[in-house]
Amino acid sequence: MTRLSAPAEIGGPNRRTVLAKPVEGIAQAEHFALDTATVAAPAAGEILVENHYLSVEPAMRGWLADKSNYSAPIGIGEVMRAIAVGKVLASGDPAYAEGDIVTGWFGWQEAATVGVDKVIRKVTETDLPVSLSLGLLGLNGLAAYLGLTIAGEPKPGDTVVVSTAAGSVGSAVGQIAKILGCRTVGITRGGAKMALCRETFGYDAVLDYAAEDLEAGLAAACPDGINVYFDNTAGPISDAVRQQIAVGARIVVCGTASISSWDPVPQGPRVERDLLTKRARMQGFLAFDHADKSAEAFATLAGWIREGRLAWREDVLEGIESCPDAIAGLYRGENMGKRLIRLR
Amino acid sequence: MTRLSAPAEIGGPNRRTVLAKPVEGIAQAEHFALDTATVAAPAAGEILVENHYLSVEPAMRGWLADKSNYSAPIGIGEVMRAIAVGKVLASGDPAYAEGDIVTGWFGWQEAATVGVDKVIRKVTETDLPVSLSLGLLGLNGLAAYLGLTIAGEPKPGDTVVVSTAAGSVGSAVGQIAKILGCRTVGITRGGAKMALCRETFGYDAVLDYAAEDLEAGLAAACPDGINVYFDNTAGPISDAVRQQIAVGARIVVCGTASISSWDPVPQGPRVERDLLTKRARMQGFLAFDHADKSAEAFATLAGWIREGRLAWREDVLEGIESCPDAIAGLYRGENMGKRLIRLR
Repeated sequence: MTRLSAPAEIGGPNRRTVLAKPVEGIAQAEHFALDTATVAAPAAGEILVENHYLSVEPAMRGWLADKSNYSAPIGIGEVMRAIAVGKVLASGDPAYAEGDIVTGWFGWQEAATVGVDKVIRKVTETDLPVSLSLGLLGLNGLAAYLGLTIAGEPKPGDTVVVSTAAGSVGSAVGQIAKILGCRTVGITRGGAKMALCRETFGYDAVLDYAAEDLEAGLAAACPDGINVYFDNTAGPISDAVRQQIAVGARIVVCGTASISSWDPVPQGPRVERDLLTKRARMQGFLAFDHADKSAEAFATLAGWIREGRLAWREDVLEGIESCPDAIAGLYRGENMGKRLIRLR
Repeated sequence: MTRLSAPAEIGGPNRRTVLAKPVEGIAQAEHFALDTATVAAPAAGEILVENHYLSVEPAMRGWLADKSNYSAPIGIGEVMRAIAVGKVLASGDPAYAEGDIVTGWFGWQEAATVGVDKVIRKVTETDLPVSLSLGLLGLNGLAAYLGLTIAGEPKPGDTVVVSTAAGSVGSAVGQIAKILGCRTVGITRGGAKMALCRETFGYDAVLDYAAEDLEAGLAAACPDGINVYFDNTAGPISDAVRQQIAVGARIVVCGTASISSWDPVPQGPRVERDLLTKRARMQGFLAFDHADKSAEAFATLAGWIREGRLAWREDVLEGIESCPDAIAGLYRGENMGKRLIRLR
């Protein structure tokens, strides 16, 4: 018995994952509920999208936090905010036609009738798997490519360290840095992810943050210091990396996966002296801010994918019933690669 | 009875301030001793400089620390490392002539016979007070001008916050930011320094970090958020400032005056989320790294001084006997303006 969704149709059922109660820390299955609404016809300026894949990402924790963040909080009873990819079934806007494949803010639901301002982009790489538009050809690839090149400024020969090295952003960063002529060092956890980092993502060195003295491992793996640190974790992993940065290092702050709650703000060693003695910088980066560079970035990434120079891993859950526990699972570290929920 | 030094001469006495014992935290008078050596004639490639003013600066704490820093530690029995300005009495190098005014690493002593690699620059602004070459026309002015313009990237209309706003670096930063069209907010302590900030250095708003709720004060003084924070303190003052940064803010880490010891590294609230949600950057800055831009910087600063657009304050101690307690006094906050020791 498949758990996938039936085709969507106007007036038919639309199963949705809604926020059931306020979240503190990491959202668990109990924080969500499944309900069923009705698929609405699009008005002028709207489109009806049948979702094929829903995205699950660490940043969802921030979207669910009720404290100040870079996006508005999600209300109780509202559909969980998520990026999805799907097919346009009906269009009230001349820019979109039935059959177009689009990604956008379509939420954790089977179908979305939304204003066209919710569309992120029309997917034009129809020769490549559609799920890639939520990974390497989506926000993750964009964060990796633009974060690394704009905030990281890697130069050939630089040593680039990546935390969550096997994750969907991290693995892209590691491979892009390699393509750009850097030496890459990945930090991950467990033998399976370490093997993936070495064999599939081509890191020059891989460290297990839980199994070894990370500072000593980094010192051995980075004899000339670390020029770029692409940070998806924050916390003690990043504190260890910061001890080994080279003069002029660039730290790209892209995620804070190791911090389970920012309320209250956790304490850690102050960073000012490390930054001053190494004339280093730490910079927060959000790909959303660089929309003007996304077309060029996607073209570059798609080219590398077609040339077989960029690998990826997906962790595909099936059916909308997989949604409620999907974020908690990410933070349990159970996924290998980009976590997606396949609906169709 | 004057405490100033007699003219120096080859073979005559050279009173010196040497490091007497290892320093932990802030160097106190007891960490130094005064001795008397003999003024040596310069060999080829050396010059003999009669020091006129010795510099005292917060960064000396780092030079004295035995842990890794951006310069080698100072040994017991060695002359305290310091920048000084003086007159060339004898030269073993054709690039320097008797009578030239030079600044350089001449140490806390009456006279220095040193290799010409210790010279920072020949002072050419002979129409301006020579002591300025240790302040606005020295490392402090350079740190202010280059740190603000290169790492701070201020734009007209930006709100620029400066900690240690009345200090020699801070007061220059505040005035340069004003000249560049920014709104300036100074953080200092006590009524006298607040008045100086308002009346002499022209800050648009001044806050006393010890006397008021700094976060509330900053929120009121910076209704559109903080675009540039020139940080000379680190610690709780900077934690408060970081709560009010605007999207895209630049934090220039130039000093850590509020941290009495970095061994062990003190704890503070983790910064990653602030940097990420505001897409802000924190950058360590040392003027030494930008020697190629110093001639242009000094020309610009000297021009503003001659036009009466840059004010300064000096805190001049007299005689080499003032050296041992001079750093401790800085950290007691007793100086108003750039601290100097006048020898002649």
